[in-house]
This record gives sequence, structure tokens and C-alpha cells, in this order.
Amino acid sequence: MSLIVQKYGGTSVGSIERIQAVAKRVSKCQARGDKLIVVVSAMSGETDRLLGLAKEVMPRPQGRELDVLLSTGEQVTIALLTMALQSLGLQARSFTGPQISIVTDAAHNKARIQRIDSQRVNDALNAGEVVVVAGFQGVTEIGDITTLGRGGSDTTAVAIAAALNADECQIYTDVDGVYTTDPRIVPDAQRLNRVTYEEMLEMASLGAKVLQIRSVEFASKYQVALRVLSSFEDGPGTLISSEEIIMEDALLSGVTLNRDEAKLTMLGVPDRPGVASAILGPVADANIEVDMILQNMGADGTTDFTFTVHRNDFEAVMSILNAIAAELGARAIEGDNKIVKISLVGVGMRSHAGIASRMFRALATEGINIQMISTSEIKISVVVDEKYSELGVRTLHSEFQLERPR
Amino acid sequence: MSLIVQKYGGTSVGSIERIQAVAKRVSKCQARGDKLIVVVSAMSGETDRLLGLAKEVMPRPQGRELDVLLSTGEQVTIALLTMALQSLGLQARSFTGPQISIVTDAAHNKARIQRIDSQRVNDALNAGEVVVVAGFQGVTEIGDITTLGRGGSDTTAVAIAAALNADECQIYTDVDGVYTTDPRIVPDAQRLNRVTYEEMLEMASLGAKVLQIRSVEFASKYQVALRVLSSFEDGPGTLISSEEIIMEDALLSGVTLNRDEAKLTMLGVPDRPGVASAILGPVADANIEVDMILQNMGADGTTDFTFTVHRNDFEAVMSILNAIAAELGARAIEGDNKIVKISLVGVGMRSHAGIASRMFRALATEGINIQMISTSEIKISVVVDEKYSELGVRTLHSEFQLERPR
Repeated sequence: MSLIVQKYGGTSVGSIERIQAVAKRVSKCQARGDKLIVVVSAMSGETDRLLGLAKEVMPRPQGRELDVLLSTGEQVTIALLTMALQSLGLQARSFTGPQISIVTDAAHNKARIQRIDSQRVNDALNAGEVVVVAGFQGVTEIGDITTLGRGGSDTTAVAIAAALNADECQIYTDVDGVYTTDPRIVPDAQRLNRVTYEEMLEMASLGAKVLQIRSVEFASKYQVALRVLSSFEDGPGTLISSEEIIMEDALLSGVTLNRDEAKLTMLGVPDRPGVASAILGPVADANIEVDMILQNMGADGTTDFTFTVHRNDFEAVMSILNAIAAELGARAIEGDNKIVKISLVGVGMRSHAGIASRMFRALATEGINIQMISTSEIKISVVVDEKYSELGVRTLHSEFQLERPR
Repeated sequence: MSLIVQKYGGTSVGSIERIQAVAKRVSKCQARGDKLIVVVSAMSGETDRLLGLAKEVMPRPQGRELDVLLSTGEQVTIALLTMALQSLGLQARSFTGPQISIVTDAAHNKARIQRIDSQRVNDALNAGEVVVVAGFQGVTEIGDITTLGRGGSDTTAVAIAAALNADECQIYTDVDGVYTTDPRIVPDAQRLNRVTYEEMLEMASLGAKVLQIRSVEFASKYQVALRVLSSFEDGPGTLISSEEIIMEDALLSGVTLNRDEAKLTMLGVPDRPGVASAILGPVADANIEVDMILQNMGADGTTDFTFTVHRNDFEAVMSILNAIAAELGARAIEGDNKIVKISLVGVGMRSHAGIASRMFRALATEGINIQMISTSEIKISVVVDEKYSELGVRTLHSEFQLERPR
């Protein structure tokens, strides 16, 4: 008998019919003899409806009272799903975050889980009940309701799986797993059977939005086996676990495309100590995150300083650079928000030399000019003109034979 | 400095605009220096919306999970009202029933309050905060969410007023107080400045639906001074308190009309011991409440047995009587659902003789035939043909000079 935590997001419980479909799926799993804990989000649209009410009262609602308001969304879902399970003849019981003491810090709207009281959940499981838990919410030591911020329901599921030492934490979404790349770009992209936490983190941060980064970090920290599955069709999904467990010798796990970047260059800055912080300091002060950074030394004692930011911040950063250009003695400012970042991800890189050069050669063969390069232990990213987005992804996917069935 | 508990029902908080109007009213009261606890219901329509969702899942939702669902209604209101108060510059803090340990029994959907932990409320009040509490809900000893059933928010307000020894519990409604009779029937009906708990209980049970009976009982038991006021206009409302406090020597407090009754008669039943229980037993078994009962002895050893029930139960009771008529040897069954009950209520009756005969004479003078009579210490009720509804009420209102300003 396994202990499984399942998490269903807002779309999966977006209507009474879908809630009933989730109940049927849970019922099938229980029939296999598993003990089940089901974590659910608010019905899709509900959180926005509640936020809308709050904004009618005050333009920027926040803090304690917003959490009191938003936490009702998941509470509605747990009651309805539990009723749906009961109407199928199952024993089931719902719990809000506070009811099972999902204790968090007091950072309202973005609280972090500190501990979970597993006693009430265990009691219900041992009584043969399916346990239905409200995601996204917790309670402070003094009893105030908190919410975990965006994607918080995934984190709730992983935290409960960790606290109860569950065999697996299954995240049901609208896709049937993690793919080697976006199937809309490469039709023969393959669903990965397995991927490591680190790879998943790189892929999530690079734009594959299947799982929230925080929940993957959490799963990695507590070694919770995570599985991404479709709530609309059957299938094994993708298992996300630690490297030791993954026996396949797959070199690479995927190619990701990030269209959200923009590139800025300050040309001909006289080179002296502190020039990098003089440029990036004002950007950081504006709360804008910088991704890739490249500094080229010129022959004449000047330097060209290039970096990328989120495309939404492009105009703001252009203004900042223009404001400091004269002071720094820069020759010119260049900006380009028609670039993309393509990345190759895989733990196999660690033990295989030559991946980077093979990557650059493949792109060159197709006439794709590389503007910037950045590497980590398990990924290589390049910035290219956005017109090469699909060609670049397909080239790398094919070069590293990611279309081979896994 | 007084401690005041205010309760606003669903209509008073039925939209963002109305919630903001409540916040302004609360703000004015606080400016007078009072400490304030505000109890609110779900926004009008919200409870029915949630019930509708539950009914889509299962036809007769009930018990624990329904309470988890319905309690979100008030939770939304407390958050929005607290935000509205904060946006007016007030310090305010919301609490759900569980958060301030409104402990109830485990009778889901109709729980009864057992105790309240006043500590957190007192702490907030002493910190200068307006305390906003979700009505209608509580929590069992083991942490399950409960609801108090219809009208429960009034009960919450009274229970909190009792627990904190508040100076007054103000119930804001869509009327500006309790009247001597329905102003739609008697235009010069007078708002009562004061009325006793007992009178209010009689008037509530007789059809004046300003306050829930249970909250008045609760207020009476714990000697909480209750005041009914309008949430839409200013005014002193009606104070409901114990007899000792009410100094006015008003003989009577009002005339009520109940249109919800129907009368049934079993004619010519051979009179023998147990005939009453043989007739009313099957009615009680069908969970139908009987109101007035009249038994006339005939000269021939038979009896005519007459009683009233809620008009909605008329057809059901007719079927029951027809089913047992032969067995009891009854001559015939008669039914009449075109009757009404008119009642005169007042604690002054206790010390004044002749009220009943004066009442019957006044009705007779207008040609109104009395079909049944029932009396208690502080009320006299008569059943008459429904065509005399308005005439009967006006006749009694005028006979006892209830139109005199109080």
C-alpha cells in the first residue's frame, strides 16, 4: 500500500463537472489500494474574482486581510470535492491549512511553510478516509491565516508529502508530462520519463512552465519524488527525482526557449575598476533582475558592456542607461528586444565533454549567429536573434537526437 | 467608553458600496469613543450561490462539508469590511469563528454555541482596533468548522456581547425598529422605543420577522441589551431588554398577523381516552408542528377536534387525517387554509384584567367571527377568516390606542 499525495490545480477543478472527474480519478486510485491525500487549488477564476472584490475596496489590497479573503477560494474547492467523493461512496474528509496546522512564517501573501502537524491527516488516513487539503494556505503561530503566494498549492502538496513521508507527490496539470522541448515547435518532441530536480529547476527557470520553481526546490530538499501528469488523460507522466535514482544514461533532457529576454549594450565605456557595478547598480536599485552579463575589452582601453533583462523591463532599463551614459563616458547605448535565449539542459553534460562545441557548430551550420553565451554545470544557453527561435530549437533537438523515444 | 457589538446582515453588506457604507457608520461610532465589535453575515446571495454549487454535486448536501463550504461566505465579508475600515484610516482586524474559538457542539448546519474565547478579541480592542467577526460560524472541540443555521449571525452577535459583557448589542436590519403592527396594514403603526424579551419572542414567533427567535432567547438568558436599528438611516431603533428596565407603563406592545396557518377539524369522533394522541401522533411522526388545538365535546358522546398547522403542511395533514378517519370512527374531515391568526402581545396583560373580553368585543362589533382562541401570559391569539386580516389588525390597533406616540 502506497501513500500518494495528488495535487489538482485550478483548471482541473474549474467546474462542478471537472471536480466530479477528479473525484472519479481519485476513486480509481483508491481502488488500487493506495492511501490518498488530495491537495486542491481554488476553482479557476475564483482567486481573480476575490482579488477583484478587494480591489474595489482598496486599489492595492495586501497583507493579513487579503489572505483571509483569498483562502476562501481553496476552502470552497475542498468542500465540493469531498462531497463529490462522498457521493461516489468514498469516505472523505476535508481540511483547511489551519486545520492541519500548516504553520508558516507571518509573511502574508508569500508565506513559507515551517512545519505541518501530520497527526490529524494520519488519523483520517488510518480511518480509511481520503484526505482533501486546501492548497496555497497556512496559519501563523498566533493563528492568522496566510497564503503562500503564486504556485503555492504545488508547495503545499510537496510539503505534505515530505511531512508524511509519502511515496510520491503527483502534480496533475493540463499537460501530460515534461517534454524534451515545446511540442508546438518540434512535433516529435518526447515526453521525458524521468528528469532530475536540477534539470527541472533549469528548465522551469528557462521558461518551461509546468511546475513552480519553489515546489521543485522543496521536493529536492526533502527528496520527495514528484510526478507531473495530465488530469485529463491517463499516462505515466514525468517523474522528477534525484540523480541517483535516474539510471538512464540520457545525455541531455531538453531544449528550452525563452522569449522573455531583451538585450542592452553600453558601448565604449572607458575601462576602470567599478564600471560593472556603476552600470548594474542603478538597475538593481530599480528592482530589475539581470540575467546574462558579457563584458568585451576593446583595444583602445574601452569596454562594451552587454546584459539581458526581462523584456517587460526593457524600456525602463534603456532610460536608466541613458541617464548614466554621459557620466560614465560611454560612446553609445544599444538595445535589442528582438532576441531569444535557447538552452540545452542535461545532467549528462557533467561527464561528457564537447557538448558546447557540438552545440555551437550545429547552430553555425544553420547560419545562426550566437550573440551571447552563458553556461552552468548542467546547461548551456545562447542568445540569438528571435527570427531563429524555432530553427535553433529544432536544430539542437535534432543534433542531440532528443526525438528518440525514451 | 462603551463596548458595543454591531451586527450587519446580508443585505447591509450585499455589495462593495454597502460594505463601504457600513464602514463609514462604524467609523462614526468609533469617533464617539466606543469600542466596537462588528459581526457580519455573508453578502446577500452568496450563501445561496454556495448552496447551489453543493447541490450540483449532491442533491441534499449536509453535515461537515457543507459547513466548510458555507462558512467561506462570512469569511469573504470580514476581509472586505476590514479592508474598507482600514482604507478609512481605522485600525481593524478580522476574525473567523474558529479564530476566536466560538466553540459549538458538533450539530453541523445547526450548531449551538457553548463558549467563546474572549482573549484575542479583548487584545485587539485594547490595541485600539475595530474587531470584525464572521457571524453564523463556529468550531467544535476537535477543530471542525460548524455553522449555526439560519439567523445564526444574530446569535453570534448576542453570544459575543454576553461573553465580553458588552453594553449593547445592536442588530442592523432593513427596518428601523419593532413596530406596534405591520405599517403596511396600519399606516400610523408606531415604532416601539422599548420592548421586553418575552414580548419580542411572542412577536417573532407570531410572524414579525425582525429578529431570529434564538438570538432573542439567548439575549434574554444572558441579559444582553439588544437594539434593532436600520442600517440605511439614522434613528434610535427599538431596545429589547428585561422587564425591570422598561419603565413605561404601556399596556400592550403590538398586534401581529400570521398568514401562514391552516385549520383542520375531525368531526364527530367517538370520545374516548387517547383520541387526541391518536390524531396528533401521526402528524408529529410526519415532523409537522401543530400550533393551536381545540377540542369541543358534543352532546352525543362524540367530539370535534380542531388544530392548526403551517399552511405548507395543509395537504399533507389532510392526507394523514383521511387515512385515520375511518379507524377513529370520525364522521367527517374539514379543512380550511383561508384563515389567519391575529395576536395581541404585551406584558401589561399580566397586571390588567379585561384585555381579552375587550379584544373579543371589539372584533364582534366589526362582525368578525372568532373561530379559535389561544392565550398565554402575555398574548391572546384568535383565528379568523383571512378576509378579516386587515380589518382585524386595524380594529385591535385602534381599540388599544397603539397609534399613540411612544
